Amino acid sequence: MVPPLAVTMGDPAGIGPDITLAAWQALKTDGPAFCILGDPALYGSTAQPISDPAETADVFADALPVLPMSLAFPAIPGKPDSANAAAILSSIEQAVALVRTGKAAGIVTNPIAKSVLYSAGFRHPGHTEFIAELTRDMAHKGPRGPVMMLAGEHVRVALVSIHKPLRAMIDELSVDAIVETAAVTDAALKRDFGIEAPRLALAGLNPHAGEDGALGREEIDIVQPAAVQIRGRGIDISDPMPPDAMFHAEARAKYDAAICLYHDQGLIPFKALDFWGGVNVTLGLPIVRTSPDHGTGFDIAGKGVARPDSLIAAIRMAADMAETRTA
Amino acid sequence: MVPPLAVTMGDPAGIGPDITLAAWQALKTDGPAFCILGDPALYGSTAQPISDPAETADVFADALPVLPMSLAFPAIPGKPDSANAAAILSSIEQAVALVRTGKAAGIVTNPIAKSVLYSAGFRHPGHTEFIAELTRDMAHKGPRGPVMMLAGEHVRVALVSIHKPLRAMIDELSVDAIVETAAVTDAALKRDFGIEAPRLALAGLNPHAGEDGALGREEIDIVQPAAVQIRGRGIDISDPMPPDAMFHAEARAKYDAAICLYHDQGLIPFKALDFWGGVNVTLGLPIVRTSPDHGTGFDIAGKGVARPDSLIAAIRMAADMAETRTA
Repeated sequence: MVPPLAVTMGDPAGIGPDITLAAWQALKTDGPAFCILGDPALYGSTAQPISDPAETADVFADALPVLPMSLAFPAIPGKPDSANAAAILSSIEQAVALVRTGKAAGIVTNPIAKSVLYSAGFRHPGHTEFIAELTRDMAHKGPRGPVMMLAGEHVRVALVSIHKPLRAMIDELSVDAIVETAAVTDAALKRDFGIEAPRLALAGLNPHAGEDGALGREEIDIVQPAAVQIRGRGIDISDPMPPDAMFHAEARAKYDAAICLYHDQGLIPFKALDFWGGVNVTLGLPIVRTSPDHGTGFDIAGKGVARPDSLIAAIRMAADMAETRTA
Repeated sequence: MVPPLAVTMGDPAGIGPDITLAAWQALKTDGPAFCILGDPALYGSTAQPISDPAETADVFADALPVLPMSLAFPAIPGKPDSANAAAILSSIEQAVALVRTGKAAGIVTNPIAKSVLYSAGFRHPGHTEFIAELTRDMAHKGPRGPVMMLAGEHVRVALVSIHKPLRAMIDELSVDAIVETAAVTDAALKRDFGIEAPRLALAGLNPHAGEDGALGREEIDIVQPAAVQIRGRGIDISDPMPPDAMFHAEARAKYDAAICLYHDQGLIPFKALDFWGGVNVTLGLPIVRTSPDHGTGFDIAGKGVARPDSLIAAIRMAADMAETRTA
């Protein structure tokens, strides 16, 4: 039997509990089934504590299966408390451990707030890097990430750089970073998305992709050489394209993922096309990991207005990826 | 009677003649009427030479009204020739002169290739700056541009900087440039688009608009102070917004134009949402000027495959703007 997905608690003062309950409502009949690692009190009467993920399948149609964890302090929606940081991190660690032991097929993480964790001593740049660290000793076939990809029904974008000031991103842009991102993305499209011969589109940095140097030299000095190296590895990738000519329907039909050099180059078009249903996928990990592409939403937590679209899409995508990976 | 629009020839070796003929076909029954300033040979049997724009109205339903100009050499589609640069520029100069004397309501420019003109001695950064120069001595009410705006059915974006390398754009970003762009855009939305109380959305520079300085200081040092100055002028503008959270339908419903700091920040989402029908509008000029938002298309010129959507939209928008401006 296929093991269930493990969903993490996320920050208990954010919208995690709201969207988890809504996702269970949406998925309880047809799945995919998941269990959540969190404090049962967060999920009210919908929660049914379980002691092993294997119980998920029997419970899921009637209740939200919860692997119980204790919070240091009761969560108050909209009022994050660093006293709960240990529980937030433990939920992630335990979810990873479940995949490691084959009890879960993959993990889906609810949003966390880095500031809450930093004040409790967390030292990773973010969720993604923490999970990469937790899985570093696990065997992994092919180029290793993490690479952040946003995936939705319209487009997939993989990012060469993520949370950097725009100027630092330009300063640090390198052939190696582009080549590694493309290699990880290519391998993940094959392994996790079942695309036999992935086609990648590579974005330039400058307007009109630099117009032969008239509008910037980075395409000539960095991005084009990276494209040549990537093709040298047998990967199908374009030359640097004018970034504003990559994201309409006709252009998107010609590639499986866009390799974007910076956060907004990928996220602006992604979110313009699909603001609510996007999924954040970590590529190049030994385990399957997806996440909604939004934050903790402290301002709307507990009010019943948070949209679960992205978490639902993240759960469905993780299940598909896990199935493809083991097929 | 309302004078017609004057459409320029553009590069005769590009798609200008193709899309002009297609636009005439699309508009001949219901208008808006336009005449073109070009070599009649470019438009075949559809052309009817006229000697004054006032003849346009009588001719337009049956033929394309052409104010005849001579090319130095016959145009060959796909083979631009700098020998025709003088005629290309003269078409623009004469169109501006027609608006100046009240014989045309506004101008719509077909695409030109700067490289062709530069080799013939043209010294302006582009079309827009050339037209700004040609109209510099004309009276203009309110803040003067030029500001480049892309306008379509989904969104309007006005650009603080246009054709600059990304790094130079950051180096040159200034409070003054943002304030001037917003002031010109605000005035033009009132005067040319008939929006009584325009609402502007201001983009940040960095991911998440800098996240309080953690991802870059430009929002704190430049963009936010600009927002304060702009509001001090009585203009309704947002604080710097995370650029990836500005372009989905719910966000777009809250503003009339987005003020974008750089080319791709505005053009990536604009073209993702509407690749074919966008219009390039020059704001803050004494005359109405629009243009399709694409280039000369030398590779497809003369083949009958160029899409006229953008030119048609540009003609319609220029007519609307001229009507609003004189109302």
